[in-house]
Amino acid sequence: MRFARTGAPGAERPIVSGSDGLWRDPTPLTDTIDLELMSSAERLDVDALPVIEPGRFGPPLDRVGKIICIGLNYADHARETGATPPEEPIVFLKTADTVVGPDDDVLIPRGSKKTDWEVELAVVIGATARYLDSVDQARACIAGYAISNDVSEREFQLERGGQWDKGKNCETFNPLGPWILSADEVADPQNLGLRLWVNGELRQDGTTADMIFGVDHLVWYLSQFMVLRPGDVINTGTPAGVAMGSATADYLKAGDVVELEIDGLGRQRQRFRQA
Amino acid sequence: MRFARTGAPGAERPIVSGSDGLWRDPTPLTDTIDLELMSSAERLDVDALPVIEPGRFGPPLDRVGKIICIGLNYADHARETGATPPEEPIVFLKTADTVVGPDDDVLIPRGSKKTDWEVELAVVIGATARYLDSVDQARACIAGYAISNDVSEREFQLERGGQWDKGKNCETFNPLGPWILSADEVADPQNLGLRLWVNGELRQDGTTADMIFGVDHLVWYLSQFMVLRPGDVINTGTPAGVAMGSATADYLKAGDVVELEIDGLGRQRQRFRQA
Repeated sequence: MRFARTGAPGAERPIVSGSDGLWRDPTPLTDTIDLELMSSAERLDVDALPVIEPGRFGPPLDRVGKIICIGLNYADHARETGATPPEEPIVFLKTADTVVGPDDDVLIPRGSKKTDWEVELAVVIGATARYLDSVDQARACIAGYAISNDVSEREFQLERGGQWDKGKNCETFNPLGPWILSADEVADPQNLGLRLWVNGELRQDGTTADMIFGVDHLVWYLSQFMVLRPGDVINTGTPAGVAMGSATADYLKAGDVVELEIDGLGRQRQRFRQA
Repeated sequence: MRFARTGAPGAERPIVSGSDGLWRDPTPLTDTIDLELMSSAERLDVDALPVIEPGRFGPPLDRVGKIICIGLNYADHARETGATPPEEPIVFLKTADTVVGPDDDVLIPRGSKKTDWEVELAVVIGATARYLDSVDQARACIAGYAISNDVSEREFQLERGGQWDKGKNCETFNPLGPWILSADEVADPQNLGLRLWVNGELRQDGTTADMIFGVDHLVWYLSQFMVLRPGDVINTGTPAGVAMGSATADYLKAGDVVELEIDGLGRQRQRFRQA
């Protein structure tokens, strides 16, 4: 099943899509897309709900919890940034208020010279994970998957005092969606193609098969350091092809258009403009 | 005015205290402590509200937004950790779900050998701050001040992959409160004594006068990198005296009791126990 939210910013309503691929209106039953709906979705007769034509897609969750990001989780991306692949996951954070819809404008921060893109598989947590005993327990804590653009300002991240968060939390820096695909419909999260274009030119073309630390390992690992709760999101890292790693270092400028795609998870399209 | 919340975890109710220092029940008027209440508090006839005897203090805000932490913001603390004082603020994040009441137990993470304390002045944001033009505009965005214990696991923070967030976001790692003192009652936030005891022994004894970057500078500075919103909290850094900086490196163990105090902001007391 797919879960999304459509409508004007701040006034989105939930929509769901079942076996026939049509978007439908669950508001006879609920007015929020939350983890309760997602966990009870199997009991919904989705295909009996009224069909609806979505407008703008908003973020696919009403309340995003914390956003935990994994750094350098693809060997080719680590290489392009000049970094050694990590021995254990590198963890940093984005705040929930950076989240915007998948096709909303993204703001280039004032003073930015190095605004960059990162297509990532987002894992949406559906059940509390706290000190999981084994990697095998991870999958049961995952509600679904979505596309995330982990927008990054490289100077703020790397040249302004040492902690990456400074370049990861600018306004609008986390387009999410268009939808969450429930975990039961993702046969293998480690076999998804992910691609990103800038102004129509393909810049990232990877597969989640190349993650250094896979989705289940990440959920297990993170649960040793923090409590994962329903509504939390894990941005699982990006493959090679970011501006920082290119010979031309052609960072984003106002007017650029970035498009992102992950198999089964839809497509995002953002216009970048000056804050 | 002072704002707090009392009751069992998850079932707290707001209490307020005005000129006579007694805690009072504002629920005839509101059932949440939020920034709306705080900003309209001047219009409340607080001393006419019914007096109430507080039980357990919970976190003093219903909904904490993001928690932005400033690293190495006291020269003596930078020195004790062997770091050079920063040229601009070091920024990292704690997530809102690490917040507990001021006297709640704090959990030493499984596998931790280096759980440490940090008494800090917490700044509570009351109005949106976005690209503030000058430091002079900062004060109008501050709702009030509280005590924060920026509990830290030093091995997770510094020896497990490079980004500090990994050692800052363990369960229960941000006791906050007992109350928020409204900004109008803090004559000079850069002239507050702050102290911390471990098992009765004074370990930190500093003053906010020694901050490298003062409160107003921090609000202005952060507003260039992210949007500060009502309910966000800034942990403004800790003075010297943490376990990491001591010759004995006597990190916390189960059964230890940590007490914290800041002038005018009350006192915290946490028992540490094993997660």
